[in-house]
Amino acid sequence: MLKLFYAPNTCALASHIALEEAGADYALARVDFRTNEQRKPEYLAVNPKGRVPALATDAGILTETPAILAFVAQTFPKARLAPLDDPFAFGRVQAFNSYLCSTVHVAHAHRMRAYRWADDPAAIKEMQRKVPQTVAECFDLIDREMLAGPWVMGSAYTVCDPYLFTLAQWLDGDGVDIARFPKVQDHRNRMSERPAVKAAIAQEAG
Amino acid sequence: MLKLFYAPNTCALASHIALEEAGADYALARVDFRTNEQRKPEYLAVNPKGRVPALATDAGILTETPAILAFVAQTFPKARLAPLDDPFAFGRVQAFNSYLCSTVHVAHAHRMRAYRWADDPAAIKEMQRKVPQTVAECFDLIDREMLAGPWVMGSAYTVCDPYLFTLAQWLDGDGVDIARFPKVQDHRNRMSERPAVKAAIAQEAG
Repeated sequence: MLKLFYAPNTCALASHIALEEAGADYALARVDFRTNEQRKPEYLAVNPKGRVPALATDAGILTETPAILAFVAQTFPKARLAPLDDPFAFGRVQAFNSYLCSTVHVAHAHRMRAYRWADDPAAIKEMQRKVPQTVAECFDLIDREMLAGPWVMGSAYTVCDPYLFTLAQWLDGDGVDIARFPKVQDHRNRMSERPAVKAAIAQEAG
Repeated sequence: MLKLFYAPNTCALASHIALEEAGADYALARVDFRTNEQRKPEYLAVNPKGRVPALATDAGILTETPAILAFVAQTFPKARLAPLDDPFAFGRVQAFNSYLCSTVHVAHAHRMRAYRWADDPAAIKEMQRKVPQTVAECFDLIDREMLAGPWVMGSAYTVCDPYLFTLAQWLDGDGVDIARFPKVQDHRNRMSERPAVKAAIAQEAG
């Protein structure tokens, strides 16, 4: 039995949607960021990094969104969430998800989590000021170069799609108008209609 | 025929070592950061992100270190560079490499590339000031929780090893004494003895 540790409005939504798309049998465990539960010993025993998502499996615990997404795709091959038999095509999926975790999510994180990289309040404010620019640059590149359409990899839906959708949810809060990126906007609208996406969002809101 | 686009002293070394370990037939293409070659149209046609590494393959171009490392492991299965038949064990490899790209490399990048996230010189200086602390926190976690020893995943050498080795090369420059992390230090020493590592380093220095 799988158990996904998540918090609302975090990148854990990507793994949550992927589990729904896979038709997986899984449980949810909400980590309460308001009470800093992610820093308490009970959760640090699950994920010493003190972050979400974490996926408990029969074999042990997995962390990091790209790893969880690839694991879900490989564990539920019938759901066809990644091109598992083609190392290059699988590599393109991994490359997209790596870009999201190492560059896009990081650009966004300088708004709410700038304290990770500086202590001085003036520096934190300056980092926050630049977030709309850096996040927009990322999504401009995605819109121009990466999002094949209608899904990220083209005609086949993959685990790239819930991850992009999740990060695109943060554009408004980051002060970036999604209408600047027509393919990303179309993707978000298309994703919003999927039953798996609706189910995951409803569960997290409930 | 594979071609690795790299620059010395960058994370491209990890992919380079992996290609050596795999016994791959590959060419090297050096991207000259001193003349800002990574921002010129010729290279942006290879990688629109303007970064290294990029791996040209017969099927197209792959970017992002975790994706290239997984591709090398899958394309050269006889080299046994990842547990390819076990989604959970493969997921642990991916999780480790995701942590390196999204957290460890990012912590380090605030020293030389802080301008990505702020323009004000005082803020950039403040971000640089914190780098020894944030990088040390990452390596402390790796030393305590992640590095099984003797290799990252335990007794089996995987593509996690060249990646960790590459990022550990930057500790001195980041003002962090590797001696604080005995398992990481032992790992670096052990890696330095491998013929593939020696070959990759010699090629990049040449």
